[in-house]
Amino acid sequence: MCAEAVTGTLYLDDVKVGDVFRSREHALDAAQIIAFASSFDPQRFHLSDEAARDSLFKGLAASGWHTASITMRLLVESLPLADGVIGAGVELSWPRPTRPGDILRAESTVTEIRPSRSKPDQAIATLETLTMNQNGEVLQRMVSKNVLFRRRG
Amino acid sequence: MCAEAVTGTLYLDDVKVGDVFRSREHALDAAQIIAFASSFDPQRFHLSDEAARDSLFKGLAASGWHTASITMRLLVESLPLADGVIGAGVELSWPRPTRPGDILRAESTVTEIRPSRSKPDQAIATLETLTMNQNGEVLQRMVSKNVLFRRRG
Repeated sequence: MCAEAVTGTLYLDDVKVGDVFRSREHALDAAQIIAFASSFDPQRFHLSDEAARDSLFKGLAASGWHTASITMRLLVESLPLADGVIGAGVELSWPRPTRPGDILRAESTVTEIRPSRSKPDQAIATLETLTMNQNGEVLQRMVSKNVLFRRRG
Repeated sequence: MCAEAVTGTLYLDDVKVGDVFRSREHALDAAQIIAFASSFDPQRFHLSDEAARDSLFKGLAASGWHTASITMRLLVESLPLADGVIGAGVELSWPRPTRPGDILRAESTVTEIRPSRSKPDQAIATLETLTMNQNGEVLQRMVSKNVLFRRRG
């Protein structure tokens, strides 16, 4: 995966609590899992199915940071904010391992919009983003605070 | 960066509240920032210094997920747990942008160890991991819950 910059047209004015944004799918395989882990999380259960068998994961599993990074790709494509998806802080959990063969998608719900007191053109929007596989099983739950801007001019 | 599996020798028995683990340094440049963003976070302020100038970042900045992923690499190398660094959940914030030329290091402090009631061989350890640049400025703060295992046999 390698692409031109993602750009969008949505402003704070266009988003409301309850809005849901659904991504495309991303098919994950063992080669991607091992390549990411080799660079960023070189632990045996992320590098080799055989070496992973006697770990907590009982088989090859993606690094949680790989699941998070793929989710970000799916999120920026599916939530086309004009000024970008800019996170101020996030909470992440991984209820079950991400496996080779999983087909990932992200579903993001706007749960709160809090206008900034000091910056009238900005708000903080809270998003809950669930990353699911082809069976609808939740692999990652992310709650993020994002900076949104009003339409200008 | 690409490496053999990181393995360690530390068990739950060897770790106590207040322990600090310091990583090596990682030198970041624009090429790494753009490569990561092209795959996982293709927004203009992560892809081009020129395109980033009129964004909130005022210049090229690494994706927060890139900072998080580099931090994981530094963490697994500096906290050599025998059964691996396995996160159950994390909180992340990015107090300032990560820039080309930054030299990153991670410093992790054990802030709590909570034995499992149902699994006597396990505990959940809370770590605070600060990712800093060469000026000691904090780029990322992470609080993670990690599964630790007692020495066996």
